[in-house]
Amino acid sequence: MSQPSSSPQTFRAVDLIRKKRDGGALSSAEIEFLVNACTHGYVPDYQVAAWLMAVVLKGMTREETAALTHAMLHSGEVLDLSFLPGKKVDKHSTGGVGDKTSLVLAPLVAAAGVFVPMISGRGLGHTGGTLDKLESIPGFRVNLPVAEFHRVLQTCGCAMIGQTAEIAPADRKLYALRDVTGTVESPYLICASIMSKKLAEGTDALVLDVKTGSGAFMKKEEDAVFLAELMVETGERMGKQMVALITNMDEPLGRMVGNAMEVQEAIDILRGSGPADLRDLCLELAAWMLYLDGASKTVEQGRQRAEEIISSGMAFTKFREMVELQGGDVSTIDDPSRLPSTKHRVEVLSARAGYVTAIQCEDVGTACVVLGGGREQKEHSVDPAVGIVVHKKIGDKIAVQEPFYTIHCHSDAQAARAKTLLEKSYEIADTPPRQKKRLIHRAIHKGAQ
Amino acid sequence: MSQPSSSPQTFRAVDLIRKKRDGGALSSAEIEFLVNACTHGYVPDYQVAAWLMAVVLKGMTREETAALTHAMLHSGEVLDLSFLPGKKVDKHSTGGVGDKTSLVLAPLVAAAGVFVPMISGRGLGHTGGTLDKLESIPGFRVNLPVAEFHRVLQTCGCAMIGQTAEIAPADRKLYALRDVTGTVESPYLICASIMSKKLAEGTDALVLDVKTGSGAFMKKEEDAVFLAELMVETGERMGKQMVALITNMDEPLGRMVGNAMEVQEAIDILRGSGPADLRDLCLELAAWMLYLDGASKTVEQGRQRAEEIISSGMAFTKFREMVELQGGDVSTIDDPSRLPSTKHRVEVLSARAGYVTAIQCEDVGTACVVLGGGREQKEHSVDPAVGIVVHKKIGDKIAVQEPFYTIHCHSDAQAARAKTLLEKSYEIADTPPRQKKRLIHRAIHKGAQ
Repeated sequence: MSQPSSSPQTFRAVDLIRKKRDGGALSSAEIEFLVNACTHGYVPDYQVAAWLMAVVLKGMTREETAALTHAMLHSGEVLDLSFLPGKKVDKHSTGGVGDKTSLVLAPLVAAAGVFVPMISGRGLGHTGGTLDKLESIPGFRVNLPVAEFHRVLQTCGCAMIGQTAEIAPADRKLYALRDVTGTVESPYLICASIMSKKLAEGTDALVLDVKTGSGAFMKKEEDAVFLAELMVETGERMGKQMVALITNMDEPLGRMVGNAMEVQEAIDILRGSGPADLRDLCLELAAWMLYLDGASKTVEQGRQRAEEIISSGMAFTKFREMVELQGGDVSTIDDPSRLPSTKHRVEVLSARAGYVTAIQCEDVGTACVVLGGGREQKEHSVDPAVGIVVHKKIGDKIAVQEPFYTIHCHSDAQAARAKTLLEKSYEIADTPPRQKKRLIHRAIHKGAQ
Repeated sequence: MSQPSSSPQTFRAVDLIRKKRDGGALSSAEIEFLVNACTHGYVPDYQVAAWLMAVVLKGMTREETAALTHAMLHSGEVLDLSFLPGKKVDKHSTGGVGDKTSLVLAPLVAAAGVFVPMISGRGLGHTGGTLDKLESIPGFRVNLPVAEFHRVLQTCGCAMIGQTAEIAPADRKLYALRDVTGTVESPYLICASIMSKKLAEGTDALVLDVKTGSGAFMKKEEDAVFLAELMVETGERMGKQMVALITNMDEPLGRMVGNAMEVQEAIDILRGSGPADLRDLCLELAAWMLYLDGASKTVEQGRQRAEEIISSGMAFTKFREMVELQGGDVSTIDDPSRLPSTKHRVEVLSARAGYVTAIQCEDVGTACVVLGGGREQKEHSVDPAVGIVVHKKIGDKIAVQEPFYTIHCHSDAQAARAKTLLEKSYEIADTPPRQKKRLIHRAIHKGAQ
């Protein structure tokens, strides 16, 4: 861990709080002092909390955001992947419902010869987490020591692990405090939290999938664009190649919501089938990853390359190789019916006929959480088998008493809360919605294409 | 102490913080929960700090301010003075330099037959404190038990003590947190802090002296007026008779700054002499106290009454009586030259001739603090003898090398820092200032006169 370069007595915390309260901008040294002092306990939590609230309400300049990201990044270990040739490229999503793109992208892009070092998270709120999904593969280990992470990465070109204790300890400390002081919802703090963790994994280029809509944390597109621009600029200031795609999360991505069910759907995509929206987003994200790496000269060429890699079977083979290297039972990959599953099914039937005009996508995510597919409290464990099949998407026609969702569960009683949520989660009208939102709204990319 | 009426689990603190962060108004029950939870430690300081910062930046409604005052007031003991006939009237100042009006007002108004229960504070920042001034009278006890406070009040009509541990413990707890989290400067929090303490002393009517200018905490008149209106309305909501005078603090009040020196000047006023500005403000504040009590039918009659009480010698006699009842050595009152004093004098001479156009009044207060007349750190003791004589006020003519200030100190070395501050504390021009600000700007009084 890097030593704090500012001593405990460099600044008075109260002066820095007052400066931010009055709308001023803190210097890099002042921000570094606060982050180090918070991480090492030189400054009490109540002063950090007051500063965080002032940041939420007064904002930060771009320079402050970069300084905060830098200080949080260097609060812990920064992986050095320079022993691997070429660029290292990763993808990060701000979180959605049914978003299993990471499971597809790591092997897909690695199969093109690009190293993908991926450090992922657990489910948060109503959204699923890549680590929870991977752990539904029996034996799969997400907690690899750094040396083994290096070895898997070197052997097969991709590796997917969880955050180690050595990475960005300032973020863990600050996030725990933000969670209980109403200071989570700040684009500046979200940007620094995401970017400090992602840059610690030693990546050279980063593709961001910033979700907007009823199932995203950023319900409004303007908020998603603001956060995306902030993260792109922050990454570029730190010498990384960056792009952010603003993507739609008004309905679940694909048809499966639930850990093992999502692994199964990711395998479908890797094998060249699967739902069109999920395949489309995976190809677009892969295209940008290959473009930022330089493996493809244009995004369009990257997309063609990704399609070829899937149809050739290389993407699936790479996924199988990674699962094996990380201790997973590959028989469940070869035959996904061997993944954890439930025996019981509960249908959620449409109360009327018509066209689907809206889905409260967050409620679908929450329904999966209350089934046990996510955590209602931090210490809860996750049930890999439960989940929801989404039969209808926005714009689809539906008949009365036709299934809208199928709940995979252990009993009617266990499904009751989820069923109630799902029954209220959609809107049906006599006419189809005028225009369905595009899946990929836009790409935010400051460098020249 | 009153029991908290809301249990620890009534609300989630983070929900209340978020509500205020987003500009919402908390209910009385929610505010009472936060105040009790903070006082009794059910809610950690970092959550209270985040809420305080949200209050500073988002403000409070009048209802919230009254609820906060009420909750803080009832966090501790509320004195019951109903055993004394008639109304109890007090005065509170927001703090200034050379402001010794409390020493004059308590005996002056008590001599008119009105009970004045006065709970005062110590010096804060660059401002002096009534308790520090009273303690320069040898033997004077400011820490009376409640029973003795009652006895002195009943015997002579006035008593002046410090805040007891039983009064408004929530304010002590919150103030300590505000001091280190940059959340002192909020009119809503200042109002609740002042009013909760003042209403705990059992007064029925309260005259507020809200200072504005270079020596006040509120440098801008609009801020002083805002705070004054807030306090008047809060007091009225709680059934008290209220008035606030907005008064000028662009220069020290009177000519003496320093504890024993200010007692001496207060005695001058009580004996019918002393500086005109100090006498004017004392008479105006006394007039309003007598008017709110009903002892005088108009403010003007109150002022005449106050003048008569001074010229009759009754005010001085009452002061002497109170000092004796509270253990003070009355020989120092009869002969103020026996009060603590220093042998050494250092003159601060004018560098040029002309007219005084401005005084950095806060610097004069700070000069007295660094001499030892106030506390640079909380645990420091106060030197009753040191101080500053202010020879020139705004608009006065001054010759080159004529004394502007005289420092009462123990040596040249001890006076060095104060001298440097004072030398830079004034502005002199060739022509007099166009118009000197009036001492009493306006009275804020919602009730009919």
